[in-house]
Amino acid sequence: MIKVGIVGGTGYTGVELLRILAQHPKVKLKEITSRQEAGMAVDELFPSLRKQVTLKFSDPSKANLSKCDLVFFATPNGVAMQQARSLFDAGVLIIDLSADFRIKNIAEWEKWYGMPHACPELVAEAVYGLPELNRKHIKNARLIANPGCYPTAVQLGFLPLIEEGVVDTNQLIADTKSGVSGAGRKAEINTLFSEAADNFKSYAVPGHRHLPEIKQGLSIAAKKEVGLTFVPHLTPMIRGIHATLYAKLTKKVDLQTLYANRYASEPFVDVLPAGKHPETRSVRGSNYCRIAVHRPQDGKIAVILSVTDNLVKGAAGQAVQNMNIMFGFRETLGIEHIPLLP
Amino acid sequence: MIKVGIVGGTGYTGVELLRILAQHPKVKLKEITSRQEAGMAVDELFPSLRKQVTLKFSDPSKANLSKCDLVFFATPNGVAMQQARSLFDAGVLIIDLSADFRIKNIAEWEKWYGMPHACPELVAEAVYGLPELNRKHIKNARLIANPGCYPTAVQLGFLPLIEEGVVDTNQLIADTKSGVSGAGRKAEINTLFSEAADNFKSYAVPGHRHLPEIKQGLSIAAKKEVGLTFVPHLTPMIRGIHATLYAKLTKKVDLQTLYANRYASEPFVDVLPAGKHPETRSVRGSNYCRIAVHRPQDGKIAVILSVTDNLVKGAAGQAVQNMNIMFGFRETLGIEHIPLLP
Amino acid sequence: MIKVGIVGGTGYTGVELLRILAQHPKVKLKEITSRQEAGMAVDELFPSLRKQVTLKFSDPSKANLSKCDLVFFATPNGVAMQQARSLFDAGVLIIDLSADFRIKNIAEWEKWYGMPHACPELVAEAVYGLPELNRKHIKNARLIANPGCYPTAVQLGFLPLIEEGVVDTNQLIADTKSGVSGAGRKAEINTLFSEAADNFKSYAVPGHRHLPEIKQGLSIAAKKEVGLTFVPHLTPMIRGIHATLYAKLTKKVDLQTLYANRYASEPFVDVLPAGKHPETRSVRGSNYCRIAVHRPQDGKIAVILSVTDNLVKGAAGQAVQNMNIMFGFRETLGIEHIPLLP
Amino acid sequence: MIKVGIVGGTGYTGVELLRILAQHPKVKLKEITSRQEAGMAVDELFPSLRKQVTLKFSDPSKANLSKCDLVFFATPNGVAMQQARSLFDAGVLIIDLSADFRIKNIAEWEKWYGMPHACPELVAEAVYGLPELNRKHIKNARLIANPGCYPTAVQLGFLPLIEEGVVDTNQLIADTKSGVSGAGRKAEINTLFSEAADNFKSYAVPGHRHLPEIKQGLSIAAKKEVGLTFVPHLTPMIRGIHATLYAKLTKKVDLQTLYANRYASEPFVDVLPAGKHPETRSVRGSNYCRIAVHRPQDGKIAVILSVTDNLVKGAAGQAVQNMNIMFGFRETLGIEHIPLLP
Repeated sequence: MIKVGIVGGTGYTGVELLRILAQHPKVKLKEITSRQEAGMAVDELFPSLRKQVTLKFSDPSKANLSKCDLVFFATPNGVAMQQARSLFDAGVLIIDLSADFRIKNIAEWEKWYGMPHACPELVAEAVYGLPELNRKHIKNARLIANPGCYPTAVQLGFLPLIEEGVVDTNQLIADTKSGVSGAGRKAEINTLFSEAADNFKSYAVPGHRHLPEIKQGLSIAAKKEVGLTFVPHLTPMIRGIHATLYAKLTKKVDLQTLYANRYASEPFVDVLPAGKHPETRSVRGSNYCRIAVHRPQDGKIAVILSVTDNLVKGAAGQAVQNMNIMFGFRETLGIEHIPLLP
Repeated sequence: MIKVGIVGGTGYTGVELLRILAQHPKVKLKEITSRQEAGMAVDELFPSLRKQVTLKFSDPSKANLSKCDLVFFATPNGVAMQQARSLFDAGVLIIDLSADFRIKNIAEWEKWYGMPHACPELVAEAVYGLPELNRKHIKNARLIANPGCYPTAVQLGFLPLIEEGVVDTNQLIADTKSGVSGAGRKAEINTLFSEAADNFKSYAVPGHRHLPEIKQGLSIAAKKEVGLTFVPHLTPMIRGIHATLYAKLTKKVDLQTLYANRYASEPFVDVLPAGKHPETRSVRGSNYCRIAVHRPQDGKIAVILSVTDNLVKGAAGQAVQNMNIMFGFRETLGIEHIPLLP
Repeated sequence: MIKVGIVGGTGYTGVELLRILAQHPKVKLKEITSRQEAGMAVDELFPSLRKQVTLKFSDPSKANLSKCDLVFFATPNGVAMQQARSLFDAGVLIIDLSADFRIKNIAEWEKWYGMPHACPELVAEAVYGLPELNRKHIKNARLIANPGCYPTAVQLGFLPLIEEGVVDTNQLIADTKSGVSGAGRKAEINTLFSEAADNFKSYAVPGHRHLPEIKQGLSIAAKKEVGLTFVPHLTPMIRGIHATLYAKLTKKVDLQTLYANRYASEPFVDVLPAGKHPETRSVRGSNYCRIAVHRPQDGKIAVILSVTDNLVKGAAGQAVQNMNIMFGFRETLGIEHIPLLP
Repeated sequence: MIKVGIVGGTGYTGVELLRILAQHPKVKLKEITSRQEAGMAVDELFPSLRKQVTLKFSDPSKANLSKCDLVFFATPNGVAMQQARSLFDAGVLIIDLSADFRIKNIAEWEKWYGMPHACPELVAEAVYGLPELNRKHIKNARLIANPGCYPTAVQLGFLPLIEEGVVDTNQLIADTKSGVSGAGRKAEINTLFSEAADNFKSYAVPGHRHLPEIKQGLSIAAKKEVGLTFVPHLTPMIRGIHATLYAKLTKKVDLQTLYANRYASEPFVDVLPAGKHPETRSVRGSNYCRIAVHRPQDGKIAVILSVTDNLVKGAAGQAVQNMNIMFGFRETLGIEHIPLLP
């Protein structure tokens, strides 16, 4: 049993971490902090946890996080970079679900996130927590930058094509659709039910913060700077990401075999049989990423379809997968939930 | 490990049974039958089960169900009563999720279900599978009539009032709301997305099949025939039942204490603190029933709010709870899923 | 053509007023005020109005409302009572869509709305704007208290029973369900898509502000104080109210005939044929209230089903209906929209 | 007043035609046929039309359609081509909302629609009813092939780029998302609420019937065969299409000016200001197509966003727009509905 703390447990990634960790056989939840809700029982805020979680939110200033073996940051961007240093120095392992340590180029990070970085030296230390790409480094990491939700679905979708060198990496297109929980548990007009239901729209077409994160990952795989057009959309569902990816093929390749081989030993990446279309509910509440590959009319454009649950494989589930790797647990331990369908 | 079969696995209760049983530590799934889909892999119909269930649907005529220790019927009404006899005689335990064995009065059953009963002698044998009421009988039962979704939420809501004799049982009112999955996985215009979304309506106000089932249960508890007005509604969500119950108080009683005591040792009934309102998503994907009790303006009308997931506590989860009781497993084994929120 | 102003045009009743008034053949929209959005084009906030509304929001302090023939208040509770006096004295007719002038008993109003009333003398002057009840008084009114959304659906449903004296008015029950737009266009966590979608719950069971308004109306009709249990629920749809009403019959009566006669000449109340169930989408975007009457199992409980669009007949549409009556226009002018289905 | 008939009025385009035509000032609805519902009052099937439409469905074999000035076909593919000839010869004008007359290449049509064409000679006669492209020909047409829903949104989005010759027409990409009503009012499991809600998926990626229709239109505009990758998706909303279009720019061009000029005099095409993102609800229930143009990171990829209501501009509204043009009515007559928001 390891001792685990969560900083910032009142958002959707926080409650999802709680759902998963409360039944993880190797985890003892010690602390969950919230400035605003300090003293409140966790299950008062989230009645779904009644009879399962008996913790109270603790005041961040009083929480004894340094006694934990591992601390998850489920905080807004800009918080973890303030608090990670002292925990890191105390030998506590850290998994940050926010964006603070994801971008290696500090200037780029500061441009997209609109603030100076408080802890650039730890960025170099951080390991990008996409197990399908970085498993070896994760094993020995002391600080994990847990990937964003779009970046997970998009990178898992593009990686085989790029690693194999069979597409024109100058003109990749990622048309992505997210459920509304991706916007977080924040009081905002845009994501009210009456605004977001029975409605579909794109947003941030001029530039979204996940663009540099995805480009960084794909450029490493391509061993050169890639060109990516990234267009996110909001779709009226709670959970789920659907990435529709377009790439121009430059070589002859059997897409189905390429993907099946690349992910053959991955427990959480599921390549569908030829001709299928993955749907987001087929991963709802689970840590799977399901992928299908198409080449319409046998043309030059490969169309890759990749779905995840943004709160699980796109956040809390992947964080626990990283934890399992770091502590030498079975990688699937505690995250084998079968998707909820219907 | 017990050997388990499912008859009729292509509906929503079927796929929910599969979700639960596939990870139940004491269950070996042996057979799942479907006339229409015989030969198809289960995970082709339900991609949510990929990497978790490797069975194929088998032809009912060829399935070797009599070698199972337990068979679940997840079939439309009218099927189990045809097939239960031979399994029963072969010593196979049976849990029927349909309505075939729920109503003791055969004439009443035939009136509401519009067909002659094919196996009235087994009706007497059947135990009504509401553990909070019948745990002792379930333990030794050979045939369980698993309660309907509305009847579970309504009876758990009314029982304490009726057992305690503090309300006028001649004028009970149950205003109930169900998610659309309650209508099953059948091709029908009424339950199309474009018909049921962004819409709310009542249905079957003149008379719904769950009325006699609820009245039977409440009348046993009241030790006299109760009067019940039962009005079901369809609400645009996938899973969930919300029962709003009204009863006229005839005696002084502390409702909160009454309910807290009645369900103090029940693992799956959760009485909320005073003043709270349960929401259906607080039980989504779980076997809980959450209940809150109110007495608006300190008047004579008790208002009881009871929520369940119609596919879990209202169907497959309760069936597995009954299985656990019958086989002497820990009652919560394999059905401890934490609700999915958001 | 009359000159019309709107105070507070950024909420859902505001945009709905704009949708209706922009095409009303007798109305010239002169002013729409908003403190926060002053100077912004209305169609920038609401792109649905592009090519149809060219007004800008004006600063309330600079708007020349006293030159209007009629001013609508589409403001939060507590605003109209501050501003109505001067307009009233200037001879401007007023329709207040908020609750400020609905309750005749000032102490009662102050108890439920939690503030001292700023203008009690105008409360006496105000006419409650339910045309089916008060048409004659509306005609000559100078200040209309436009009814709340729940009160419209519930009163239209109960009135025939109460006026006819055929039910026990001591134990009326109104189980009501509202779409989320009823909560308004305010940044709040409770009404986020990820909180309200795929979910159903009751709220305010101990006491909701519409309770005294409904009781006031029904008590006038009953010529004595009525007893009412009122339980509102939130259902995951944008627009629509469904009221399920229960009353104990004390006399023999043909419900269908009673309702058909009562509303025979009402343009916006539609009594469905016997045995039908109204659905909220059958009135979506329209000013209709559709009602069905049932007497399950020929028992003593009358079950009345009443549906409206909370933003139209429950707010903006009814306000325009009142306007039409006040100015002697055809009562249906400009509010004859056919419901949007699907 | 013209006399109008509708063949096949029980689907979603049928009820939408009824909603629009029932209030069109120049139209007298004479006949609406349905084999299955003959004799039933239209407002029994669609209670939204109560108090507005008093017609009954008539038997197709007995309907006197040849006395109409205009007949709309709102039938499944394959019906209009059987019945159009005799009406055409009788001098009745025809607007076919199905796909029967949209594709000029008969072999191509037969390949995609899987049946022999029953009336190829009328295909040549038919005018493709996209007013923004074909207004002059529509004016004198006797038979209109009303465009499909995707083709309307995609063509209006791509046309300015292609007509201006500023993109590489060999690699156009259309990533499109449709509300579920696009699948029609048919009893099918795929489009049940419990299947389609809270879910997102692509479909028909290998090839969708609207592909040849779109390619035909764009190729005419390009004056050469275009290359198009077309990927449709199903999104959990009732109405609405969102097309996200990608094209590689080959020349310098001010996209905003290009689009503003192209559609300056179009009553139903609305080019949004620079930087905006159209949402489907901004056209809900209306005949508008709203378009925004982007060039992310000032790169070579133009991203065009185009939204319509699939049942209005994508079907019934456009059909009435064509009718208005054919009969010399004001083009916007009877289709000026303001979108329903929220």
